[in-house]
Amino acid sequence: MPKMHRVVIVGGGFGGLYAALTLRNASVEVTLVDRRNFHLFQPLLYQVATGALSPANIASPLRHILRHRDNATVLLGEAIDIRPQENVLVLRDGQLNYDSLIIAPGTQNNYFGHADWARHAPGLKSIEDATEMRRRILLAFETAERETDAAKRQAWLTFVVVGGGPTGVELAGSLAEIARDTLRHEFRSIHPGSAVIILLDAVDRVLPSYPPDLSAKAARALQKLGVTLETQTSVTDIQEDFIEVKHGDAPRRIPARTVLWAAGVQASPLGQALAKATGRPLERGGRLAVHPDLSVPGHETIFVIGDLAQCAGPDGKPWPGIAPVAMQQGRYVARLIENRLSGKKTAPFRYASKGDMATIGRAAGVADLGWVRFDGFLAWLAWLFIHLWFLVGFEDRLLVFTQWAWNYISRNRSARLITGENLAKIQPPL
Amino acid sequence: MPKMHRVVIVGGGFGGLYAALTLRNASVEVTLVDRRNFHLFQPLLYQVATGALSPANIASPLRHILRHRDNATVLLGEAIDIRPQENVLVLRDGQLNYDSLIIAPGTQNNYFGHADWARHAPGLKSIEDATEMRRRILLAFETAERETDAAKRQAWLTFVVVGGGPTGVELAGSLAEIARDTLRHEFRSIHPGSAVIILLDAVDRVLPSYPPDLSAKAARALQKLGVTLETQTSVTDIQEDFIEVKHGDAPRRIPARTVLWAAGVQASPLGQALAKATGRPLERGGRLAVHPDLSVPGHETIFVIGDLAQCAGPDGKPWPGIAPVAMQQGRYVARLIENRLSGKKTAPFRYASKGDMATIGRAAGVADLGWVRFDGFLAWLAWLFIHLWFLVGFEDRLLVFTQWAWNYISRNRSARLITGENLAKIQPPL
Repeated sequence: MPKMHRVVIVGGGFGGLYAALTLRNASVEVTLVDRRNFHLFQPLLYQVATGALSPANIASPLRHILRHRDNATVLLGEAIDIRPQENVLVLRDGQLNYDSLIIAPGTQNNYFGHADWARHAPGLKSIEDATEMRRRILLAFETAERETDAAKRQAWLTFVVVGGGPTGVELAGSLAEIARDTLRHEFRSIHPGSAVIILLDAVDRVLPSYPPDLSAKAARALQKLGVTLETQTSVTDIQEDFIEVKHGDAPRRIPARTVLWAAGVQASPLGQALAKATGRPLERGGRLAVHPDLSVPGHETIFVIGDLAQCAGPDGKPWPGIAPVAMQQGRYVARLIENRLSGKKTAPFRYASKGDMATIGRAAGVADLGWVRFDGFLAWLAWLFIHLWFLVGFEDRLLVFTQWAWNYISRNRSARLITGENLAKIQPPL
Repeated sequence: MPKMHRVVIVGGGFGGLYAALTLRNASVEVTLVDRRNFHLFQPLLYQVATGALSPANIASPLRHILRHRDNATVLLGEAIDIRPQENVLVLRDGQLNYDSLIIAPGTQNNYFGHADWARHAPGLKSIEDATEMRRRILLAFETAERETDAAKRQAWLTFVVVGGGPTGVELAGSLAEIARDTLRHEFRSIHPGSAVIILLDAVDRVLPSYPPDLSAKAARALQKLGVTLETQTSVTDIQEDFIEVKHGDAPRRIPARTVLWAAGVQASPLGQALAKATGRPLERGGRLAVHPDLSVPGHETIFVIGDLAQCAGPDGKPWPGIAPVAMQQGRYVARLIENRLSGKKTAPFRYASKGDMATIGRAAGVADLGWVRFDGFLAWLAWLFIHLWFLVGFEDRLLVFTQWAWNYISRNRSARLITGENLAKIQPPL
């Protein structure tokens, strides 16, 4: 029997997981390497950050998903480098030989040269990020309740979300809901409803990748929830108790104890290592330019998919960094590898957009399906349906559906736990 | 209008929460202080540690529970001392004046003078403890999968639970289920079913507080699940890669990378501060002896309830450190304070035992209701019903019921997430 073709996949996100799943009937040995033991449904991470869902609701153990795929092995490990000449993927504690390599490590937060902002303005890429955001949001209200100085109290009740893409919009909408609905009746010294929620973006509208009329509708929906929009506003500094912004000429300080970062992503360290190993430059946003078949130029057995891959589609626009792109790329590369093994050609990758959508609070949303645009309750329902549909595992769907239904009826968010270290860095006066 | 009587409650566990709830119609001002923002349903903590439930399933925000109790204020803060002469409760960052003080801080793990064991053998008192246990259990299987040395691999597949009370029995039973059922089909190099699960206790039977025939039944149920029982066995040392035990004469080393501590509890630091401030000694198990009306001798406005309170019942036996005792004490002290305010006497506290029960794996259990004892499936069902009943909040009940039903049908545990720092301290060879 000839030796099996070895496909090594780095990353169990949408790209890597869908590649592994698509290879189920192929005569290949699949090894999926991830630092984490679970697939994370990132589009719902903001719901963990705002106490609506639990981490396990949006994360499924990779081993469990692939348990009956006998050609697939899952390894918990961290890939740190590639040696293309030897067909070797280097792990922190070992190495793997591959015949085909699929790199799908995702991205990390980008503070645009201000790494020190990360401490005061956490981003939202992992479960730990989400529970940290949740801790800060809830602790801010707790501290405000005990703060007697009015100005300081207001700074604890001021929340600034940086970045008006879908994540920023969804975070700001959820924050408004928490302040106006969820926490109503729960405090005695403060009115959570008096919290100020500001959504900043450097460009002139929220959801800049959407058609302008949907941006306008999203802006109106956010304003109706009490979110203050500040467009054409850029961040110049973030410290523990303020954020400094610039709109036009003079910088202005906003006293705020909670700043959430939804503004930008960059290549993961593995993406940087891959660029170095293959002698390719990293493009804008830390992405790596690939051939139309998603292989790295000069290295036809190495594929890059998901947020790290950069290539203009036929319309000249780069692929957006969203789950459907990664899923389609994962499936595409899996089929290409199968085709290659049987000597068949594969047409270049084309992203078939199913549309974009975002929710704004409990029953509003915007959706652009290409052939139709809509907003309001219908867009929200469509969003719910699609996100449930793509959640891995029937169980998760069942539980998330139950949780959402109950959240909707009760206006509660039950996963409001302040966990982790440094519980109570609470202010002195009582 | 006369000044309101101020009742300050320290701790939002079963004792403190039920005291606050019982005072809802009293003409008093209630302040509930807790370091955490949630009430934790501790009896189900082992289900979080073993990936069956999510933290938010067994924790409810205290503010949410008390949101419509207008006489109750919740404060996030840490009580560190009491000044009985001034009627002052000292917080880490402030102080509170009280007219009546209810102390219900619970307990912490007790390593019987071996504080260094805590690092290698985590206990199970908080959400963070539970997710740390979960991390270690899951990471042990992951590391075994990548370990090529047979002896080292077996140490990763050896799990030792110290302490044969209800928590230890439930942990050991769940571990057996994880190894034999949940993880089956999920690994490629190891057979999770070959994991060795050892339950140790220093006395001669598991569940020593139960009638001997139920202990015997629990032992048989555990052995049927493949748990090795080692009774009359005490721990002499715990290091990173072994536990040393003694049964009879010679100490013996068991190579094991995962040791879980369910062996003992002691007074919280506040309990120690209270003992000092009131000049009372701490009894066995770090408890504080109280009057039959649960007040501290010499301090009739200070009450101690829950795990910290020590008093022989009329049968001469001390109260067990379980939720029903704490709940009944919380209700009792609340009524006593109301009675006092209207000049009425209150009969001494009596614990009305509703019985004891424990589960062993997925469909077995033992129950002793005093007037009847039973075991097997019926005991398991009774356990399920009672634990759902006492979960705070309809939502939690609904979700936990859905989760349990699905866990039962699918034999899966979906909350199997390795989270927290130091993800992959994985062994070198591949």
